[in-house]
Amino acid sequence: VDAPDTIYFLSDYGLRDTFVGIVHAVLRRLAPRAAVVDLTHEVAPFDVRGGALALAHAVPHLGPGVVLAVVDPGVGGRRRCVAVEVPSRDDAHPGWFVGPDNGLLTPALDAVSGVSGLDRVAAFALPEPAAARDTVTFDGRDVLAPAAAAICRGDSFGGVAVDLGDLIRLPAPVVEHDTGNGRPALRAEVIGIDRFGNVQLAARRADLPDALPAPGDAETSVHVTVSLLPSFAHPERMSGSDMPNTARWVSTFADLEPGEFGLLVDSDGCLALVMAESSAAGELCIVAGDLVELTI
Amino acid sequence: VDAPDTIYFLSDYGLRDTFVGIVHAVLRRLAPRAAVVDLTHEVAPFDVRGGALALAHAVPHLGPGVVLAVVDPGVGGRRRCVAVEVPSRDDAHPGWFVGPDNGLLTPALDAVSGVSGLDRVAAFALPEPAAARDTVTFDGRDVLAPAAAAICRGDSFGGVAVDLGDLIRLPAPVVEHDTGNGRPALRAEVIGIDRFGNVQLAARRADLPDALPAPGDAETSVHVTVSLLPSFAHPERMSGSDMPNTARWVSTFADLEPGEFGLLVDSDGCLALVMAESSAAGELCIVAGDLVELTI
Amino acid sequence: VDAPDTIYFLSDYGLRDTFVGIVHAVLRRLAPRAAVVDLTHEVAPFDVRGGALALAHAVPHLGPGVVLAVVDPGVGGRRRCVAVEVPSRDDAHPGWFVGPDNGLLTPALDAVSGVSGLDRVAAFALPEPAAARDTVTFDGRDVLAPAAAAICRGDSFGGVAVDLGDLIRLPAPVVEHDTGNGRPALRAEVIGIDRFGNVQLAARRADLPDALPAPGDAETSVHVTVSLLPSFAHPERMSGSDMPNTARWVSTFADLEPGEFGLLVDSDGCLALVMAESSAAGELCIVAGDLVELTI
Repeated sequence: VDAPDTIYFLSDYGLRDTFVGIVHAVLRRLAPRAAVVDLTHEVAPFDVRGGALALAHAVPHLGPGVVLAVVDPGVGGRRRCVAVEVPSRDDAHPGWFVGPDNGLLTPALDAVSGVSGLDRVAAFALPEPAAARDTVTFDGRDVLAPAAAAICRGDSFGGVAVDLGDLIRLPAPVVEHDTGNGRPALRAEVIGIDRFGNVQLAARRADLPDALPAPGDAETSVHVTVSLLPSFAHPERMSGSDMPNTARWVSTFADLEPGEFGLLVDSDGCLALVMAESSAAGELCIVAGDLVELTI
Repeated sequence: VDAPDTIYFLSDYGLRDTFVGIVHAVLRRLAPRAAVVDLTHEVAPFDVRGGALALAHAVPHLGPGVVLAVVDPGVGGRRRCVAVEVPSRDDAHPGWFVGPDNGLLTPALDAVSGVSGLDRVAAFALPEPAAARDTVTFDGRDVLAPAAAAICRGDSFGGVAVDLGDLIRLPAPVVEHDTGNGRPALRAEVIGIDRFGNVQLAARRADLPDALPAPGDAETSVHVTVSLLPSFAHPERMSGSDMPNTARWVSTFADLEPGEFGLLVDSDGCLALVMAESSAAGELCIVAGDLVELTI
Repeated sequence: VDAPDTIYFLSDYGLRDTFVGIVHAVLRRLAPRAAVVDLTHEVAPFDVRGGALALAHAVPHLGPGVVLAVVDPGVGGRRRCVAVEVPSRDDAHPGWFVGPDNGLLTPALDAVSGVSGLDRVAAFALPEPAAARDTVTFDGRDVLAPAAAAICRGDSFGGVAVDLGDLIRLPAPVVEHDTGNGRPALRAEVIGIDRFGNVQLAARRADLPDALPAPGDAETSVHVTVSLLPSFAHPERMSGSDMPNTARWVSTFADLEPGEFGLLVDSDGCLALVMAESSAAGELCIVAGDLVELTI
């Protein structure tokens, strides 16, 4: 097997400081033949769960290589750094994932091991740097990037095998059915708001209850009630009855009238609340972590 | 002719989400030998016209390669995607332009065909993906990037020839002369505000009426009245008489006193309203789409 | 010696416009074999001093190559552009620095010449472009990037030797001791606020007066008074007695309780005021240029 020659880099470092640039410089020095593809560095600061979902959604579109992911509020603490090998059949996805063991990698690992099989996955804890840790560490620069570079060079990174089942996992986003008040309902957590204000839900098409209208061909347009519910992230929210809205199942943005809310299956395969050339999230005051309820 | 090995990528995807990163990953997989140069991804969301002008101004500085441009509010709708070949004499500019047919490419095509001649330009409509389009499409990822990669590999992208004259064109920015009230005047649309608050006008030096003072050598300093006018973009603006200002023709920022407005020919060749180490746009509350009137 | 094949690019161009993309395109055309590592382009507009410090902190992590740095409020004025060669022993750092002679490069040059010796450093003034300078120049595109590319190609850039001692130097950030009121104190300028709100001080561990508690092993936790003082940057600030706070010496963020302020040695080796998963700068309303006083 050839050593990988592409590093996919995702972080919450932001682009305002030199964090990302310095990690690139380290990769250039330690793995000069590898190309670095920046997935994004604007994960919200410390938002491990948001970074994990963004990475899991990106992974089906990545080729062979090494994923380097850093959203790491526990840097310098007792959490460990890991490298996980997921051998790919036919180079269908990255073969390695490097990052902190805090739940950031597991949704992506689930996505690719569903393709290539869990039995071949191997996880390793990375060694800590030899230097005394009496200053804050920059593990992206000093531990994680050097490990990713070593993998690209075909060198050992000195890891110790750990049990895949011991990796930290974060709670999955909420997706639940409710028929409590006699009406079929799907309740789903908002897992992302993109630049255009599209509201991505944790639910997929298969999560829709049978009794609820579903997206069909372009001719089927069905009305759906959308409500905000109090959520973990925003317990101060008013209950959903205050903000009923109607959205129409559409195939794409162009099917919507100005000011109209639409529901569609987005390019990640998730249900999403959208508007045409306008921000659904802004209009509805929805943020990530909110719950949205779809009913007839 | 060698296949191109550089892809110039411009979009309104922003850097907060993984859109740009995923397109890079697709390009890395499908055209591993091509380098990707990001022109910008912070075109305002859905601002086809702003993206078109930014691209047209960038094009004179690009070498051989493929331009991949995506500002596409109509994604998934009936607008088509196109690839346009503009064979370059002496590798003076990119030989291919790939993007939606919504006016985004035409100003740049005008710029390069003025160099290399329209007779050799050929346009092709890209095939839609085979998959049923019952979910929202991510054409940058699924249609446009694969076409740009195919061009870099020297492969066919399966396009169908279309008439260059049928490509959608957007209205040109306003540049007009007015002598209605007996004073020579140049009225020009604000086409861009850069990070530093410099106000770029659609007018160029050649657009100045003879009776109006023009930028000369550094010794010629002339006063000019600047007014805001109601515009398409901002009909609620007060008329210009409310905001008279004076700007001085200068060669560069360093010629200005603190707090003073200057007019100069910027590095794109456009007239621009500027201040020294300060934001002229912020000071004047000017935004893109406003009209500015220059008089004696 | 091989010609360098990496360009480290830092600027205040921002990522919203096409400035950075156009410079990349020029580098791609003129030095197609060089890789470009973007250190950051979000230095605050015109903030030469902030850019100089960011570059100096990044330099110890860079390998061989050419630094291209552009924060240049005087563009088009009488300041000159320079290229400085600092031959590296063992490829320990970049061998060339290209930028305006306005103080942007000197802290980084000090950092690397401390490693490789000043005696081998050579500085050159870059030639101005032949075109008449009656329009604003874009020296990053037209002067500095071409010079960096020429160095990567092993070509001459036509510079004229200048005296290293004549390069412009900016005032160093404030670090001072005070025992005026009988209490040992360290007063240090805030030189950077990162994305996470960590407050970087100009002082290093060695700057702590003996009488002041210092960061030791994780068990030593010491209380320190932090005060804001009027500063050059913000003379309107209230004096420090209004905002006393307490910070605890820690090794890393994970040692802090929620809401608690910490002091640590950051990954650049500077003292920093921090919080755990929260913004110390936001909580304290501190900005770059403020002065912070540490006392018992």
